Amino acid sequence: MNPYNAPLADMQFLLERVFNAPDTWASLPAIAEAVDIDTALAILDEAGKISRELIHPINRSGDEEGVTHEKGKVITPTGFKAVYKEYAEGGWVGLCGDPEFGGMGMPKMLGVLVDEMAYSASNAFTLYGSLTAGAALCIHAHGSEEIKNTYLPHLYSGEWAGAMGMTEPQSGSDLRTIRTKAEPQNDGSYQISGSKIFITGGEHDLTDNIIHLVLAKLPDSKGISLFLVPKVALDNSGHLAEGNGVTVGSIEHKMGLKASSTCVMNFDNATGYLIGEPDRGLVCMFTMMNYERLAIGIQGLGTSQAAYQMASEYAKERLQGVAAGTKPGPQSDPIIVHGDVRRMLLTIKTMTEAGRALSMYTGQQLDFAKYGEGDIQAKAQQYVGLLTPVAKAFLSDRGLEAAIMGQQVFGGHGYIRETGIEQLVRDTRIAQIYEGTNGIQAIDFLGRKVTGDNVAALKRFVDEHKANMELMAHVSSSYKHKVIALFDALLASALQVNENKLTHPALVNACAVDFLDAFGFILYGYFWLAMANAADDHPDQQFKAQKQHLMQFYFDKLIAKADYHLSQVNAGDSAIMDIPEVLF
Amino acid sequence: MNPYNAPLADMQFLLERVFNAPDTWASLPAIAEAVDIDTALAILDEAGKISRELIHPINRSGDEEGVTHEKGKVITPTGFKAVYKEYAEGGWVGLCGDPEFGGMGMPKMLGVLVDEMAYSASNAFTLYGSLTAGAALCIHAHGSEEIKNTYLPHLYSGEWAGAMGMTEPQSGSDLRTIRTKAEPQNDGSYQISGSKIFITGGEHDLTDNIIHLVLAKLPDSKGISLFLVPKVALDNSGHLAEGNGVTVGSIEHKMGLKASSTCVMNFDNATGYLIGEPDRGLVCMFTMMNYERLAIGIQGLGTSQAAYQMASEYAKERLQGVAAGTKPGPQSDPIIVHGDVRRMLLTIKTMTEAGRALSMYTGQQLDFAKYGEGDIQAKAQQYVGLLTPVAKAFLSDRGLEAAIMGQQVFGGHGYIRETGIEQLVRDTRIAQIYEGTNGIQAIDFLGRKVTGDNVAALKRFVDEHKANMELMAHVSSSYKHKVIALFDALLASALQVNENKLTHPALVNACAVDFLDAFGFILYGYFWLAMANAADDHPDQQFKAQKQHLMQFYFDKLIAKADYHLSQVNAGDSAIMDIPEVLF
Repeated sequence: MNPYNAPLADMQFLLERVFNAPDTWASLPAIAEAVDIDTALAILDEAGKISRELIHPINRSGDEEGVTHEKGKVITPTGFKAVYKEYAEGGWVGLCGDPEFGGMGMPKMLGVLVDEMAYSASNAFTLYGSLTAGAALCIHAHGSEEIKNTYLPHLYSGEWAGAMGMTEPQSGSDLRTIRTKAEPQNDGSYQISGSKIFITGGEHDLTDNIIHLVLAKLPDSKGISLFLVPKVALDNSGHLAEGNGVTVGSIEHKMGLKASSTCVMNFDNATGYLIGEPDRGLVCMFTMMNYERLAIGIQGLGTSQAAYQMASEYAKERLQGVAAGTKPGPQSDPIIVHGDVRRMLLTIKTMTEAGRALSMYTGQQLDFAKYGEGDIQAKAQQYVGLLTPVAKAFLSDRGLEAAIMGQQVFGGHGYIRETGIEQLVRDTRIAQIYEGTNGIQAIDFLGRKVTGDNVAALKRFVDEHKANMELMAHVSSSYKHKVIALFDALLASALQVNENKLTHPALVNACAVDFLDAFGFILYGYFWLAMANAADDHPDQQFKAQKQHLMQFYFDKLIAKADYHLSQVNAGDSAIMDIPEVLF
Repeated sequence: MNPYNAPLADMQFLLERVFNAPDTWASLPAIAEAVDIDTALAILDEAGKISRELIHPINRSGDEEGVTHEKGKVITPTGFKAVYKEYAEGGWVGLCGDPEFGGMGMPKMLGVLVDEMAYSASNAFTLYGSLTAGAALCIHAHGSEEIKNTYLPHLYSGEWAGAMGMTEPQSGSDLRTIRTKAEPQNDGSYQISGSKIFITGGEHDLTDNIIHLVLAKLPDSKGISLFLVPKVALDNSGHLAEGNGVTVGSIEHKMGLKASSTCVMNFDNATGYLIGEPDRGLVCMFTMMNYERLAIGIQGLGTSQAAYQMASEYAKERLQGVAAGTKPGPQSDPIIVHGDVRRMLLTIKTMTEAGRALSMYTGQQLDFAKYGEGDIQAKAQQYVGLLTPVAKAFLSDRGLEAAIMGQQVFGGHGYIRETGIEQLVRDTRIAQIYEGTNGIQAIDFLGRKVTGDNVAALKRFVDEHKANMELMAHVSSSYKHKVIALFDALLASALQVNENKLTHPALVNACAVDFLDAFGFILYGYFWLAMANAADDHPDQQFKAQKQHLMQFYFDKLIAKADYHLSQVNAGDSAIMDIPEVLF
């Protein structure tokens, strides 16, 4: 297997020319203080290096070895502990954390790129840090000052890890029914008792402590509250003291992500601390969930990039057959000459590059929402609401497709574990499921984010992006008209769903996935225009030509999927809902 | 995991009402002698029973245990040997074999259903018998009488197994470059030397002998010839004698199909016997390849059916959330109330049932081609040529989609090995690759079968099926018009490709997959009309209602994919071929 190579030129292009990071950062004082473009590029360079040299080399061995569970201990594969230590000491876990508590204060626009590289290098390894950063974000947003001072520095430094305890056997997508209990104690703490399943990083040997954020119910309450429950309790001076009734029951044996521990966690009168208001735990947890949702989208994006690299390198090396229209000589051609192989590679590449734009744009809106003011902040919050479920679902769906298509380029060799690309398929498959299935994301998008405000946020988003296109002087107007027409059709579909959803209560649920997919394919059309337009005065003529070719491929071959998905939304829900359950 | 249940009512419906098996069989004397509909239904019943009680129970344990390779021996997982013995003794390997040599002489129309059940029960187990039946078919078609008498009875009886030795490290899709050599001997036999990779069932412990069909080159020839090379040589009376220079070098560690051995096979001056004419080996091997191609399509179909059963049963049991438009009570609803879950289940189900129609229709044409006469036979041969690559690619692509969608219905539980559905994804993934990747199938279809005769066979096929629709009195004419319009558009696209392929030599390669997919989705529209029409006078009103609902779902939600794929064909190859290799 070849080493991973970070797509630094594409990343720099997006930062500088497509999303204009320097101007964005200059407008946000907290960021301007922490970073400029040169620092950002140096950080990317370093992230590329550690992804290549540190993380990627343990990815396949980690899959073969897997995590093991023995006598209440979970042991990560060879190399994980050392690599995690180095990764944490490099400050990567706290990259976007608050400098007041030891974070590096970097913008999310940059963070998404670092995350992508790490996920490209190893889905399984990167989850440990991602959960930790997400837990820190939640504690930062909702914890008391004392909690923040006690826990955040250890999380940002990577000495301690984070985990998220939501799911129970009877409570997956539907958290109303959780049974974990929290009993108030005289000292203001709570005793937490119950079992949680599917806890990523619930137990492992990478860090000295694991900080669990756990959903539980207070006595006599139907509401759900959020508690911080450390694996190891702290003494009065904040040092590690002793165990806290937090134990791992078992680990799951999974299709992939074998180097990531997925645990059944038992809380037995474990001491916990309330985060946020009582009965408002879901709101607090959603701070972490939304962070993880974007991260999981980026897992899909990182997978897509890795699949592209592996498949394109293989296609340039593997000799088989000769180019159409040429005579077979003694030597076969590399399979990249074949139209069908090119079709697969170009599909992965155009979707991945547009996906990176979606990831960065979402990161940029997160930065405006966090560090901006007034209407800029308010608009960004709206957009983050819209974009988070799309980034999670659309990027992770495309991640699986990219991995499968990349595997197809390898032919029979792609099915062999040694090649490594089948691991991508197995590892990334879960991204469509966890942190809320992609169906749940789509229902959140169409039901809450799009029709929840009578399509106002989506209309604002569409209007802004239509206006942006008018300023793009270097791309074909027929492509612009195609995107404008699709945006209009999308709005019309949204308004129709909004109008009919009361009389057709299942309409949103039945059509949400197609609606989200339609939006994704349209938005990628917009991003391809933006990228080709921004590449027009790129000093590297090959770079410019590449973006124009890829844009053409996207518009010739892929954007029509938006029409298909919109037609499915417009077809309504009767064919889905009318058939009685007994006929399934 | 629930036991497998064969969809016998649907199978009987297709046989009796949709494809009119009794009349077909009555028209073919060789078949009429061997089977009538009652016997056929009894055979299906028995096949369902062994698939459920014998094969399915070793599927998951076989995946966990896998095959092992020790000192030149390959050991199959616990239970495989005993189950294979019982399966073989039941006559299932020789089900469609020639009675003159001990086969049961059953029609392929029936064989495809038996194969589907077995693949539903276990992809990995069923391959061993499938390779054996395919080898027997090839020997029957191209072997000398002596060869047939010597080998066929042992293959049909399942005492001996078959394997297909084509691929070498440098020769995958492109067999021109194989290096295995065949040296003629004075006694008329040949000494075969070389290495073959990716040999399914190349070595195992299920049978006393394994009959390899091996492609090799005669001295001073660029042509490829086919040889029968037994693992164990026979003495003059046809009994097992001693080893024959056929050894297993290693086994592959794969994404799935872990209970199926995939071997590197070394032939070291192994004695072999020419099958067919010298230098005509590929033609002979294609008899086996085409058999296996349909079988691999059926592997995808069996997977689809298994995925549907698992997912629909889970969706009826798993309680989570409440139906849209209802108030949450103390009890959650089964997730089958949710629109998005129904969308996934209905997609799998409609595609699977139409897929079964494609499988049976192809089987029927194979029967006409084998047992029919005159124009009936000639037309069937044309149709088999058209349908084989479609069945292989379209059914296996849908198999993976069904497995992934079924897994999605399971949510997080679908990612856990215990549930069993992730195994379907891993096992069926190879079906898109082996026996010629689905890209190769599509190029065969569009380049050879469709445009190779200037679209004559496809036009005949389309005209016949358009005429058939006129006779369907019980289905909506708007649906019929949709299919007719799509058939016409398909022909127009085919003619356009045919016209442009000389000036655009890469056009076929670049557009073939979309063309095949378009054909598949249109044909499934036709099959849904045929099925709903045939169900109109079905005595079971629920059965009739179900087929009508499913037809509506197909036309509301899925057939538009044909439009998408046709638009991609019509978009041509420039966006794919114009981009220089250096920009990948």
